[in-house]
Amino acid sequence: MSKPTIEKITVIGGGSTYTPELIDGFIQHEPDLQVDEIALYDIDEERLNIVGGMAQRQVQYAELDTKVTLNLDRPKAVDGAKFVLSSMRIGHMAARILDEKIPLKYNVIGQETTGPGGTFKAFRTIPVTLDIAKDMEKYAPDAWYINFTNPSGIMTEAILKHTNLNVVGLCNNPINTIAAMAEAFHVEPKDVFLEWMGLNHVNWVRKVYIKGEDVTQQLIDNLEKMVDIEEMPKIDPDLVRTLGVMPTYYLQYYYFHPQRLAEAKAAEKSRGQVVLEVEKELLKKYADPNVMIKPPELAQRGGARYSEAAVNLIMSLMLDRRDVQIVVARNGTSIPDLDPDVSVEVPCVVGAHGVTPLSMGRLPESIRALCQHAKAWESATVKAAVSGSRRDAYLAMLQNPLVPDYPTAVKLVDEMLEAHKQYLPQFFKK
Amino acid sequence: MSKPTIEKITVIGGGSTYTPELIDGFIQHEPDLQVDEIALYDIDEERLNIVGGMAQRQVQYAELDTKVTLNLDRPKAVDGAKFVLSSMRIGHMAARILDEKIPLKYNVIGQETTGPGGTFKAFRTIPVTLDIAKDMEKYAPDAWYINFTNPSGIMTEAILKHTNLNVVGLCNNPINTIAAMAEAFHVEPKDVFLEWMGLNHVNWVRKVYIKGEDVTQQLIDNLEKMVDIEEMPKIDPDLVRTLGVMPTYYLQYYYFHPQRLAEAKAAEKSRGQVVLEVEKELLKKYADPNVMIKPPELAQRGGARYSEAAVNLIMSLMLDRRDVQIVVARNGTSIPDLDPDVSVEVPCVVGAHGVTPLSMGRLPESIRALCQHAKAWESATVKAAVSGSRRDAYLAMLQNPLVPDYPTAVKLVDEMLEAHKQYLPQFFKK
Amino acid sequence: MSKPTIEKITVIGGGSTYTPELIDGFIQHEPDLQVDEIALYDIDEERLNIVGGMAQRQVQYAELDTKVTLNLDRPKAVDGAKFVLSSMRIGHMAARILDEKIPLKYNVIGQETTGPGGTFKAFRTIPVTLDIAKDMEKYAPDAWYINFTNPSGIMTEAILKHTNLNVVGLCNNPINTIAAMAEAFHVEPKDVFLEWMGLNHVNWVRKVYIKGEDVTQQLIDNLEKMVDIEEMPKIDPDLVRTLGVMPTYYLQYYYFHPQRLAEAKAAEKSRGQVVLEVEKELLKKYADPNVMIKPPELAQRGGARYSEAAVNLIMSLMLDRRDVQIVVARNGTSIPDLDPDVSVEVPCVVGAHGVTPLSMGRLPESIRALCQHAKAWESATVKAAVSGSRRDAYLAMLQNPLVPDYPTAVKLVDEMLEAHKQYLPQFFKK
Amino acid sequence: MSKPTIEKITVIGGGSTYTPELIDGFIQHEPDLQVDEIALYDIDEERLNIVGGMAQRQVQYAELDTKVTLNLDRPKAVDGAKFVLSSMRIGHMAARILDEKIPLKYNVIGQETTGPGGTFKAFRTIPVTLDIAKDMEKYAPDAWYINFTNPSGIMTEAILKHTNLNVVGLCNNPINTIAAMAEAFHVEPKDVFLEWMGLNHVNWVRKVYIKGEDVTQQLIDNLEKMVDIEEMPKIDPDLVRTLGVMPTYYLQYYYFHPQRLAEAKAAEKSRGQVVLEVEKELLKKYADPNVMIKPPELAQRGGARYSEAAVNLIMSLMLDRRDVQIVVARNGTSIPDLDPDVSVEVPCVVGAHGVTPLSMGRLPESIRALCQHAKAWESATVKAAVSGSRRDAYLAMLQNPLVPDYPTAVKLVDEMLEAHKQYLPQFFKK
Ligand SMILES: [Mn+2]
Ligand SMILES: [Mn+2]
Ligand SMILES: [Mn+2]
Ligand SMILES: [Mn+2]
Repeated sequence: MSKPTIEKITVIGGGSTYTPELIDGFIQHEPDLQVDEIALYDIDEERLNIVGGMAQRQVQYAELDTKVTLNLDRPKAVDGAKFVLSSMRIGHMAARILDEKIPLKYNVIGQETTGPGGTFKAFRTIPVTLDIAKDMEKYAPDAWYINFTNPSGIMTEAILKHTNLNVVGLCNNPINTIAAMAEAFHVEPKDVFLEWMGLNHVNWVRKVYIKGEDVTQQLIDNLEKMVDIEEMPKIDPDLVRTLGVMPTYYLQYYYFHPQRLAEAKAAEKSRGQVVLEVEKELLKKYADPNVMIKPPELAQRGGARYSEAAVNLIMSLMLDRRDVQIVVARNGTSIPDLDPDVSVEVPCVVGAHGVTPLSMGRLPESIRALCQHAKAWESATVKAAVSGSRRDAYLAMLQNPLVPDYPTAVKLVDEMLEAHKQYLPQFFKK
Repeated sequence: MSKPTIEKITVIGGGSTYTPELIDGFIQHEPDLQVDEIALYDIDEERLNIVGGMAQRQVQYAELDTKVTLNLDRPKAVDGAKFVLSSMRIGHMAARILDEKIPLKYNVIGQETTGPGGTFKAFRTIPVTLDIAKDMEKYAPDAWYINFTNPSGIMTEAILKHTNLNVVGLCNNPINTIAAMAEAFHVEPKDVFLEWMGLNHVNWVRKVYIKGEDVTQQLIDNLEKMVDIEEMPKIDPDLVRTLGVMPTYYLQYYYFHPQRLAEAKAAEKSRGQVVLEVEKELLKKYADPNVMIKPPELAQRGGARYSEAAVNLIMSLMLDRRDVQIVVARNGTSIPDLDPDVSVEVPCVVGAHGVTPLSMGRLPESIRALCQHAKAWESATVKAAVSGSRRDAYLAMLQNPLVPDYPTAVKLVDEMLEAHKQYLPQFFKK
Repeated sequence: MSKPTIEKITVIGGGSTYTPELIDGFIQHEPDLQVDEIALYDIDEERLNIVGGMAQRQVQYAELDTKVTLNLDRPKAVDGAKFVLSSMRIGHMAARILDEKIPLKYNVIGQETTGPGGTFKAFRTIPVTLDIAKDMEKYAPDAWYINFTNPSGIMTEAILKHTNLNVVGLCNNPINTIAAMAEAFHVEPKDVFLEWMGLNHVNWVRKVYIKGEDVTQQLIDNLEKMVDIEEMPKIDPDLVRTLGVMPTYYLQYYYFHPQRLAEAKAAEKSRGQVVLEVEKELLKKYADPNVMIKPPELAQRGGARYSEAAVNLIMSLMLDRRDVQIVVARNGTSIPDLDPDVSVEVPCVVGAHGVTPLSMGRLPESIRALCQHAKAWESATVKAAVSGSRRDAYLAMLQNPLVPDYPTAVKLVDEMLEAHKQYLPQFFKK
Repeated sequence: MSKPTIEKITVIGGGSTYTPELIDGFIQHEPDLQVDEIALYDIDEERLNIVGGMAQRQVQYAELDTKVTLNLDRPKAVDGAKFVLSSMRIGHMAARILDEKIPLKYNVIGQETTGPGGTFKAFRTIPVTLDIAKDMEKYAPDAWYINFTNPSGIMTEAILKHTNLNVVGLCNNPINTIAAMAEAFHVEPKDVFLEWMGLNHVNWVRKVYIKGEDVTQQLIDNLEKMVDIEEMPKIDPDLVRTLGVMPTYYLQYYYFHPQRLAEAKAAEKSRGQVVLEVEKELLKKYADPNVMIKPPELAQRGGARYSEAAVNLIMSLMLDRRDVQIVVARNGTSIPDLDPDVSVEVPCVVGAHGVTPLSMGRLPESIRALCQHAKAWESATVKAAVSGSRRDAYLAMLQNPLVPDYPTAVKLVDEMLEAHKQYLPQFFKK
């Protein structure tokens, strides 16, 4: 049988420093999958040329039969795509730095995915995404939109509620957690099955199975003795025992907010500033015509296994594998404590027909309210991003689990709307 | 037709300074209702004698054909009662003062109903209440248990889940809000109909009808111009407009926590300390054999219209009036965003058959998550109070909407368990 | 206080032989309620004059200060009404006779409310009703539409789903059952409280309370010894014991279909034919200028206590009484086994604000599926009546609990569509 | 890697004529799976010897390294099993013949899975199954119970509700339908993905995907032109178009009851009688020591692809394949129109951790009520089988979709209870 072929994959935000990671993913999977064209699209011509040049050298060096094209025209970039991968940052790293810095003044950690930063990143990005959706409905109506852009749960929900696209949201948190569990139990990742429940970046593992054996209690009892679990570095074993389920990485911002806030305030640079410097170094490497493979420094950028997750997803959607992957999708009846039309991150069967969540059942009582609270924030954020109403924005911010009271919500919104004004036309129409 | 007669009403916590208020209620309703015996029960003989003496003089002075008995033996006090009214404070005002003071150290307001204080008041009171229930199941199995004891929503839920009693929880917040609305619109309280939704002390008014006309939007638009609404003194009109529904009095502790916390820290005396002094004065009056009617100072004690609410409820339960009253009852399907077996505070039809909630429908999105969050705290508090498990106590505290993080929850529980140790045997059994 | 006044009540189908019953109701309640105008509207001028003349004499004879007007112009009839009462029969009694006769050929009882007859009566009546709604939205937008027209549950659901009217559906079955229970227990109707659950004409009594005492088991145990219960004449006590709840009158057609079918086949005349003759006699009386009060023969017509139910409802809507009445209303969360937007017949609080169902909770398992099945038929009937799709009509008929199989459903629809063609333009557009 | 090994598989009803089919399944999968022991258990020693002898010759002839043991002692048979396969018939074919014949007198088709026969087969089989469960809880607590015994949905629900076993229910209807679809579209079975919804033998296909393409509408439009679909031979294309989804094989008894009834009445022999003769012939073959492979006549017995379904299931449970199979499992939140604790037949992920249903969402309106109705019958049947209450039996029978009225339900139960008295001790205890 001949190798399955994808005629065209489009990358929105192709000038991202992640792109060489993604390209590397396709290079690794070359034996299983032929990609005819990877169309990189960006609005920043300079970066597109630097990163795109790097991508072209990677492909060439690996002797792939794949054309990498650089595109500044979005309809053309999207036209005929089978998959559109999105990883963008409206306002660049400068906007992220504001998202992270402003909230500190009000004793709230910025957090660009689960905090006030996430609300504002979504406000900036959703309108652009809905525009892209219009292009896709016209030029690539059957394509899959694979969202990497954070906050991934909010972005995916916006697309589910406001477009007709086929969409899946992706995060490397599940695949990294599986890898960590595999390591802890000295097995292969494929031997790990997780009952993963909740939202993107707001999720818990209810059960861990190793080769079908339920090891959850064993894990909870021995957390201190386990090898360091990369994805749960700052989670207190005592908290795990109290909850009876395992919170994942990002929940540290909710369960340990004051500590994380104090660290953020004490830090010389925000995460955005650190990344900005990493990116500068990376772009220098990418610009070097002698660099033919992704540089090791890319690992510091923080997207471990993203390309693996992406290629896995694409392979199953394409080849109708109907295997189980943990992705962001429409809830339906998977978790009955949340509305059917919201996005959740749960194990799903992924095949050519689409993405079908498993029936996960009710959230355990120890985590239910926090998950509902975070989802209310997410859905309110989608609503405000689309309506452009300042009151809706207050309501979204008020419902973020990190925001302690109404006056703080109002101050955060007022200052952040002003700071990001140029990227938020929907809030400033007359 | 002869006047309806109640053979016996028992008051648990009969030595409470509220008792003369309650007695006054029965005096006011004497034309409609004959009460043969009011049995006051307390564990504090001295207070029982003082308050009980006052009650006996009130009844005598009003020329009621009612016997007021003083009881230190609980089974005897309960035996044959048709209604058992509970208003008790395990650990007296001293315990309340601890409930209010300790949390301030951790930057959390104590709040004896919706905050950490509520959790600990429930921890102390639930075991005693379940003991009373055992007496009632034996000596007055068909009696109605009318709970005034705070936190009323949590207490009512504990009784619903762990006994077979007929129970209703009561608060004066609804009746006071109705009175305030009547005043604002220059009508009688009976002309006001409120779509009141949520939990005891965690509730919102979705719609206000005056003589059947929906005036909600008019009210929201004119909040500043309205006469001062007693029950919503500290609620920002802008918050009301953001929510689209009206939060009631106690929600100030959630929506304006930092301000309330700052005031509590700045206050010379905690609310418990203030009340302690008011009570001392009241008890002096009650001890005076020349005082025959409830003293005006009682109004300062904070229970406005409690006796009116209580008598209304008793009249409808007795006379099968099937009118609508806002009380604390089992949710059933009234609010589908909360589980059927939890307590809610909603409009209910009250008749001799019992208390049936109206179908209120889904909580508006702007308030849903906070209500679910607070209910998770309430239900976790009931669970921990019964289990006596320290982990369950952490989980309850962690889910209180005022508690910012896990380490704070742990510290609060550890210190408060120690402080109240003598009243919390369930947490210290070997 | 002056007597409450309704400026105008409009009666759609004013030429109905029921009208004098309704007029009599207002005469009986004259001390409590002033009605300035009763506007009778009909498309049949001759009947309108006969029945209208009778109504005018009734009012005159009773010395009411009420104007009875006769109207052939619908917008004018509706203009300014506070209440619009609907009781109409598209296609007259001749159509009912077809509804009852045709199904017998296919071994299905016609039944104009719960059987195939109900589907076709709804098909004929819904489009006319939606037209009336348009008039009301224009000329009487705040009026209450009180639906007497059968099948009342289906009609009410059509109005709820396809108009903005304030609507309540009414049936005399609940009020008659209450009267029968009062008689059986030698009390007043007001002493009876029923947990009535289900749909119009497809309902059960879960609990019977007499003065607040639960007498359900006593009733079930002594059904044979009870006085004949008018509303449940043909219900086998053994069936009641099997179900554990009491089915009401119309359920005989479901639980005893073959017997009722055999009787209908054996009957010389269908119910419609019998009523036709009763009506002829009634109209003769009405035409007699010496008849000033409703004739005793009207009782045979079958609408016992309808006017009482109607006046009760109007009084509570007007006077904001907020008492409990069993009417047809939007389900909301009253019965969670049915969708929120369907109509149900349950106890509701009726006040000037509207009609709010009590939270009735889950249907007992012994009746749940039949109720869901009947509701599926009702909702499918509404859908087909509006769409005019023959397939939708098949689907509605297939889901009627009396229809045994698909081929029968198809034959019933095909023959009945043809028979009623002139009244079903929606099914015959090109 | 060495071949995965199952130490022991136990077959309850090992003397069934199906057993050689099952043995053949293990022979076909020998390259992938080593089975050390197949323990056949039966109460009928003669049949066990004949069928068991055949099974031993099959294994020997195929040179399998598998021991086939014959067991009359159930605890011993079950001890140490990893999988227990159940395929039994309490009362043998004689009881089935009664199940099929008696209802015909009352104009109801007997139908041993979806009709009155199913109720009585369940009444006879559930008590025995719960006894087996007790053995398993003692001697093989971690084993999987794989239920082939009809009515498979009811049997599975009984085990789910009344035991602690790991259980899956199995039917060849899904695998046969997939095969038929593959044939119709000229693809491999693995290329077919079905949105299969409902209960065992009461199910519908909402969507058909071929290699990920949704071909549902294409299929509905071309039903007449399609090759004969084995599993849907008697389904009218017009019905499919009316429903908008495809009913599967056994629904002919509901949608076309009168026709199937007429055929059953006209038939010389009931299905049970036909099978009885087929079985006699098969047993003759099995008794012949020269027959070493399953005889072709076995195909007539009606269990096409059963062994394939069974081996597929066992392989995934064992090898943690986590692929999607359509089996009978606990609903959970898969279909929210049915209760969580009932059994449904839906696509499930099958792995070593167990069986997790996909979130299928709400049943389409066109089929919802019938599915709920059939499930009410199933659950009431489980309840009556366990309680042994005659009233519960009436209630179960009354809720079967084929039973037209209450008197018929009573007569069916009374006569069938008497006829099967010896196998129904639970209904005849004093
Ligand atoms: Mn992520
Ligand atoms: Mn209160
Ligand atoms: Mn009626
Ligand atoms: Mn089967």
